[in-house]
Amino acid sequence: MNLIDGKLTSKEVRKDLAIEVEKILSAGGRRPHLAAVLVGHDGGSESYVSGKMKACEEVGFKSSLIRYEDDVTEEELLAKVMELNEDDGLDGFIVQLPLPKHISEEKVTETINPRKDVDGFHPQNVGRMTIGMPAFISATPQGIMELLKRYNIETSGKHCVVVGRSNIVGRPMSILLSQKSNHGNATVTVCHSRTPNIQEVCRQADILIAAIGLPGFVKEDMVKEGAVVIDVGTTRIKSDKTKSGWKLKGDVDFDAVAPKCSYITPVPGGVGPMTITSLLINTLKSAKGEVY
Amino acid sequence: MNLIDGKLTSKEVRKDLAIEVEKILSAGGRRPHLAAVLVGHDGGSESYVSGKMKACEEVGFKSSLIRYEDDVTEEELLAKVMELNEDDGLDGFIVQLPLPKHISEEKVTETINPRKDVDGFHPQNVGRMTIGMPAFISATPQGIMELLKRYNIETSGKHCVVVGRSNIVGRPMSILLSQKSNHGNATVTVCHSRTPNIQEVCRQADILIAAIGLPGFVKEDMVKEGAVVIDVGTTRIKSDKTKSGWKLKGDVDFDAVAPKCSYITPVPGGVGPMTITSLLINTLKSAKGEVY
Repeated sequence: MNLIDGKLTSKEVRKDLAIEVEKILSAGGRRPHLAAVLVGHDGGSESYVSGKMKACEEVGFKSSLIRYEDDVTEEELLAKVMELNEDDGLDGFIVQLPLPKHISEEKVTETINPRKDVDGFHPQNVGRMTIGMPAFISATPQGIMELLKRYNIETSGKHCVVVGRSNIVGRPMSILLSQKSNHGNATVTVCHSRTPNIQEVCRQADILIAAIGLPGFVKEDMVKEGAVVIDVGTTRIKSDKTKSGWKLKGDVDFDAVAPKCSYITPVPGGVGPMTITSLLINTLKSAKGEVY
Repeated sequence: MNLIDGKLTSKEVRKDLAIEVEKILSAGGRRPHLAAVLVGHDGGSESYVSGKMKACEEVGFKSSLIRYEDDVTEEELLAKVMELNEDDGLDGFIVQLPLPKHISEEKVTETINPRKDVDGFHPQNVGRMTIGMPAFISATPQGIMELLKRYNIETSGKHCVVVGRSNIVGRPMSILLSQKSNHGNATVTVCHSRTPNIQEVCRQADILIAAIGLPGFVKEDMVKEGAVVIDVGTTRIKSDKTKSGWKLKGDVDFDAVAPKCSYITPVPGGVGPMTITSLLINTLKSAKGEVY
């Protein structure tokens, strides 16, 4: 059994990104620039955005943080988005979700210029990904694809089972893995809460992507000997062993499943550390004009 | 075995559309209006576009045909697209593909205003479909979904196998069938040319969508007893029994497979007759403001 180390891989990718930034600068280019819009003071969002800003610094990107209080109107926020859309000094920006209830996340997402949508949430980027055009791919699926690449895990001709069909993980993973492309070309099955024989379906998987959001859902008898298991679950559960009083638990019953796997991602330390790095990858792609 | 009669269903849908048009007009509304842009004189395109114009007439839509010769420049064509984008008297328009080689189909498709893209080819509509938002869905997948609905074929909890991953059929079908929605909620497997055990995968299907473009590919031993089989193949093969010297052959070995099926679409007369009707459905949706 090999552990897929997302923390280590993330560091390696960031090193590569830093080298690319140096190349751009020494060729006289502009430093890649990511902006984040943060509304309110939700603890999770605060720490996530601050992680993104720090990551920019680490690889040599310029970063900008634009803050609004919880009572910002939708109109004000949309006006800012439209201003950022036109800002030639920016390669990409994100509006940190969730937003307060009086603001339509859908409207905000669709107002972002797809060319600057490094979160990859705009329908135009989702559509481009779906039809195999260059696109900004959202953080978690792109992070998983990067892990599969860097660990040389063959996907072509394999049977991948994706458990979960969310817009941010299950759906894009099922599309990317079956795409006619490197690290695609897999036969892909999407199963979900309405799948009656989900155990049996999972047992067929050469590569199992667990993204259903139910801690410990994937048991030992649902995994084929030698399978690759990617655990996307990150549910907070109570713990008396941590200072915070909680810990992250994945969708996979790790201790029982791991011995059967050829490769497996732990939680934490697997897919999670790749997400911010994916955002950096997209920002660099935008700076280099590789998508649009 | 029940035959799914696309010709009959198409007629029924068109009757329903005609009634809707009457309702709009008697409420003082404007007649739905579809325009088609046709470049050159390709025989297939000519007859397809003329079929679309006739279908408009049949249901009471206004239709307009805009013609260009083969030597139209990309610039001219894009200028016309931008003009149509802004035309408030139009509910939707299509640019008939294929286009001459000196014109980028991708650029033309992405220039069309997604709100008028009743072909559903713009990445923004593909993306909206992918994430389950209201969208214009392209003709063949929408036609198949309409057939499944009108024949009351249950998809929830079923295992659908989609053979083929094309942008115009396989990919959208796999997404729609697994979507959290009515006539979705299926477990879906996408297989294709790189699937090693494709026969075995097909045998698992409660609903089999054959869209691989290989005439007669699906044999009797690839189909489970009682399965629903949707044949999307339309390859022209030589025939000495028709005046034209050719006939359409589906991806399914119909005579051998049909007796095992609970439902099956014939070729011709199954999925094909639904495609133009799908375009009408989208045009009406646009007129009623149901998508954007």
